[in-house]
Amino acid sequence: MPLLFLSLVQRIHGFSPVLSGQIRTRPHRWIRLASSTVNDLSSEEKSALEEKIKSTGDQIRALKESGANKDTFAPLVQELLKLKAQLDPALAKPTQTKKTQQQKKQHSNEEESDFITARSVDYSKWYNDLIRVAGLAETSPVRGCMVIKPWGMSLWDRVRNELDAKIQNRGVENAYFPLLIPKSFLSKEAEHVDGFATECAVVTHHRLTADPDGSGLIADPEAKLEDPLIIRPTSETMIWYMFRKWINSHRDLPLKINQWANVMRWEMRTRPFLRTSEFLWQEGHTAHATAEDAVEEARAMLDVYADLCQDLLSIPVVKGVKSPSERFAGASDTYTIEALMQNGWALQSGTSHFLGQSFGNAFDVTFQDQNGEQQPVWGTSWGVSTRLLGALIMTHSDDAGLVLPPKVAPVQVVIVTIPPKKSDGPEVQQRLNAAVDDLVEKLKAKGIRVKVDDRDYVRSGAKYFEWERKGVPLRIEIGPRDVQNEVCVFKYRVGDVEKKSVSWVDAAQMVESGLKEFQSALLERANERLQDGIRQGATYAEMKSLLENDEASEYNGPGLFLVPWKCDADNERKIKEECKATIRCYPLKENQEGMHEGQKCFYSGEEATHMALFGRAF
Amino acid sequence: MPLLFLSLVQRIHGFSPVLSGQIRTRPHRWIRLASSTVNDLSSEEKSALEEKIKSTGDQIRALKESGANKDTFAPLVQELLKLKAQLDPALAKPTQTKKTQQQKKQHSNEEESDFITARSVDYSKWYNDLIRVAGLAETSPVRGCMVIKPWGMSLWDRVRNELDAKIQNRGVENAYFPLLIPKSFLSKEAEHVDGFATECAVVTHHRLTADPDGSGLIADPEAKLEDPLIIRPTSETMIWYMFRKWINSHRDLPLKINQWANVMRWEMRTRPFLRTSEFLWQEGHTAHATAEDAVEEARAMLDVYADLCQDLLSIPVVKGVKSPSERFAGASDTYTIEALMQNGWALQSGTSHFLGQSFGNAFDVTFQDQNGEQQPVWGTSWGVSTRLLGALIMTHSDDAGLVLPPKVAPVQVVIVTIPPKKSDGPEVQQRLNAAVDDLVEKLKAKGIRVKVDDRDYVRSGAKYFEWERKGVPLRIEIGPRDVQNEVCVFKYRVGDVEKKSVSWVDAAQMVESGLKEFQSALLERANERLQDGIRQGATYAEMKSLLENDEASEYNGPGLFLVPWKCDADNERKIKEECKATIRCYPLKENQEGMHEGQKCFYSGEEATHMALFGRAF
Repeated sequence: MPLLFLSLVQRIHGFSPVLSGQIRTRPHRWIRLASSTVNDLSSEEKSALEEKIKSTGDQIRALKESGANKDTFAPLVQELLKLKAQLDPALAKPTQTKKTQQQKKQHSNEEESDFITARSVDYSKWYNDLIRVAGLAETSPVRGCMVIKPWGMSLWDRVRNELDAKIQNRGVENAYFPLLIPKSFLSKEAEHVDGFATECAVVTHHRLTADPDGSGLIADPEAKLEDPLIIRPTSETMIWYMFRKWINSHRDLPLKINQWANVMRWEMRTRPFLRTSEFLWQEGHTAHATAEDAVEEARAMLDVYADLCQDLLSIPVVKGVKSPSERFAGASDTYTIEALMQNGWALQSGTSHFLGQSFGNAFDVTFQDQNGEQQPVWGTSWGVSTRLLGALIMTHSDDAGLVLPPKVAPVQVVIVTIPPKKSDGPEVQQRLNAAVDDLVEKLKAKGIRVKVDDRDYVRSGAKYFEWERKGVPLRIEIGPRDVQNEVCVFKYRVGDVEKKSVSWVDAAQMVESGLKEFQSALLERANERLQDGIRQGATYAEMKSLLENDEASEYNGPGLFLVPWKCDADNERKIKEECKATIRCYPLKENQEGMHEGQKCFYSGEEATHMALFGRAF
Repeated sequence: MPLLFLSLVQRIHGFSPVLSGQIRTRPHRWIRLASSTVNDLSSEEKSALEEKIKSTGDQIRALKESGANKDTFAPLVQELLKLKAQLDPALAKPTQTKKTQQQKKQHSNEEESDFITARSVDYSKWYNDLIRVAGLAETSPVRGCMVIKPWGMSLWDRVRNELDAKIQNRGVENAYFPLLIPKSFLSKEAEHVDGFATECAVVTHHRLTADPDGSGLIADPEAKLEDPLIIRPTSETMIWYMFRKWINSHRDLPLKINQWANVMRWEMRTRPFLRTSEFLWQEGHTAHATAEDAVEEARAMLDVYADLCQDLLSIPVVKGVKSPSERFAGASDTYTIEALMQNGWALQSGTSHFLGQSFGNAFDVTFQDQNGEQQPVWGTSWGVSTRLLGALIMTHSDDAGLVLPPKVAPVQVVIVTIPPKKSDGPEVQQRLNAAVDDLVEKLKAKGIRVKVDDRDYVRSGAKYFEWERKGVPLRIEIGPRDVQNEVCVFKYRVGDVEKKSVSWVDAAQMVESGLKEFQSALLERANERLQDGIRQGATYAEMKSLLENDEASEYNGPGLFLVPWKCDADNERKIKEECKATIRCYPLKENQEGMHEGQKCFYSGEEATHMALFGRAF
């Protein structure tokens, strides 16, 4: 039975002939979808629905008129939309009017819902909902790997472009190294192998062939690799293998290389952007004549990362150094930037490693100094990944959707035109178009990324919600009345409760200054949260009682703990077991200021060696 | 024995104590290197060498003064450098003076030679030499995979940036899809599986573990994947799987997605950039409501590629459509751009496929049209890869090294400063520095990529050769005499035989216009070669006798053949067997003009259906 005909049968006879094998495999979804169509509603049910829609609408209007913050009535609006969708499924997805009840489309209905769980209900679910409704990423059919959708990719491309320029400004050159690494390479650096050989994708064959039993394709037993290859989890081994060829004289140093690449670490529990088997990143690798140069490079890159977070993403971070047990496998020191998410958990957002001579020794890299003597080479490596987008999402966003700092937003300003009534006559539409064109031109001349949403098949309210979900910093509305008054209406994504009326002549200038303010306001807000989120002077018992039952899903959790600490891997392990807290870092600032001096370790009571920042972490 | 001491022993006693195990494993190289050091030369040998150096130097000077093209005396210069290196190995590699004879460095000596085989001697070897001496790429320890070095990467990054903007201008959005593809996906499109399932990297395990026999790491038998995954050879299958979720209504079309990614096809015979197991590319994938829209998209992208080649890389191409047997696996039509290399072989430089409904059907993708009816979806895909760099290298370069069009050159102008004599006094150096700073500033203000080579440990001549090898379009020399005359000396990489003296005030302006001319001159020269390289009216016997023994290594080979042709896969296969020639394409222009009409096929003698372009190809 052709699909179209199937749908006609249903409409006429009011039943769903659940016959085909494919349909039978998903009875629940089929039933749920079928029951939500208008054709299945009795007239009583329909009236009840209409009644409920009216009363919900009235509530919203009342709240709006009382000047309530939109966050307070957002749940009601969601409910209203759902009710309306029950009445007429076409309204549920404005882009999918007249959707037929095909089995092939059912699966998408739930996935494509615009519903966002409130942070206070379940922070983890809120995060996943945001990623879905903003169109940032989607799970793929390969376990642990995600598809980065255009809105998410645009964020990453912007991070990449900004950071690439900063990296090149430091005299680092881009290169590209193979995806696959001989497994023997991993064993060369003793600590590195423990860190990375465990969970990785292993390539064992170089051909598929027809399965002799006729059931499909199998790895061709004739095409087995003599030595398996692994997909790079990171490229120190490959790059230091090449450095050995490239470094001979002191004149070849420093050698600074960066690559933008995909890497793979087989993860058991994944979260989009935060922890996926495959992810995108840049990895910098440098070689130096002296330890001092290498340390300086590693710390300078930490600063580059911290500045990137702060200036581009409005994410304030704590710069610090990892405790020995949290170091990168093969590093002498790991520097880190740690950000604080809205659930009180830390997110390691970038790391920079001083490698000492570990990889230089493992790969036998030396250089000839000015006196003709062979000397060992010192190394660094450093990277940030698509994980940064996780930090971005969780730092600023709210229950209505994504909130993006203007510098990284794919669209900085969306102009929503409100169509004139037919009675307004064509000249109103013409003046409206002219006003919009003029504003767009002026904004583009200022380098502002602007989009006009003039879709005639989507209601204005739905547009507002859509662009709010996507985190566009500023919405400008222009309608027929505004044309008369030569004004337009500004509404920022967060901050200002009220819409503002702005005259046409001032608009472009106001946008420019407004976006700048918006960018700093987000940083300021996040910075306040970071400062408030670091608790000082807690006892271990206090920290333990606050953290031991803390979950990622808990909004506004207990946060981070800055405490005097005597460096001790055993105690660190015990604390991790007792309350799942780890040392995020020894913050550079507090340790440089010697805050720990004369203090006793909050755990062992011994003389403190550092100030340590403890917390739960993604 | 410390290495330095070892070298002293040698110098004093004139013998090489080949004692250690590591040294013994490479006796040949040790001997070869040892015999080329000055310490091993008798005084007779030394005088003979000096004599030969003098006479070669005289020859070069004479040729130079007679105004000879540098290509004619370049081999002599190479010889001179070799002779000098024999006399004093320190001169062979200016950046590695005082190199000790360590075994660990020996391997690099041959690999790092600056020698370029002449095109006329062996075109294939010339190509490989160029890639080495220009520092574009290097083989890696993983078979078939290359390391793209900074000079090569910079070329690709520039191609990427230019092309990405052009792609986005067409309303295509970037996204990212998983590296790994379930093997079952490949079987979904019947032709596609034949094309791509054969040679690919198969991931079968997700963990390494210690080999029980203690000899290293093995794929953990406990961590075998239920269903093997393959590393993407191309992403149609994964992307159309996702398109099924994303396409519901006519409002979702056209859907245009692009990704920049690495892909892998297990190649048996590889050539850097032209054919490697892993390569970088962009792959665009679009879905459309009608066949017409899809064909239009595929052809528009072919134009984008052709323009990119022409405008950025100065590579003229023939646009055409592939014969049915040369189509992409799963396509209804494959459009191609074909470039002509200096050995007369074609290089397919980009393809754009009209996929018909093949992937739409295979992945069950349909959309609801304005009338509520489900309709099939039409597709395209299109890509260019790092192969373009192979085309770039082979189109313009000569026996002295790479030749780069200014728009893609990482460095467009190199300024080589000639150090004043000590007798000149400090003010000459100061005026020189000031002049250089001023010129650099003016050039940067014009957006010109300029580099100053003021290394004091490299002779000017060596610098000239180095930047020539790397293909920098314009060299500017400034020395003490030029300071007095307020001039500098321009030398373009190709074209002008003579150096030109240019006054300081005019220099920046002259650079700007000169680079523009250089860019077009390269295109013009390549275009002439393309036009000359297409032979018309040849009989099949003529083509066969010219092509059957033609090799990639043969410079200035017979080129391409434009002939009337009756489309016939069997005859195509026979011709390929008989003389290794393939149909590169049915050129769009000649076929639109109907050139074949009324003509007989040059092979079968039947009524021609097309004009076909035959040739050998990389």
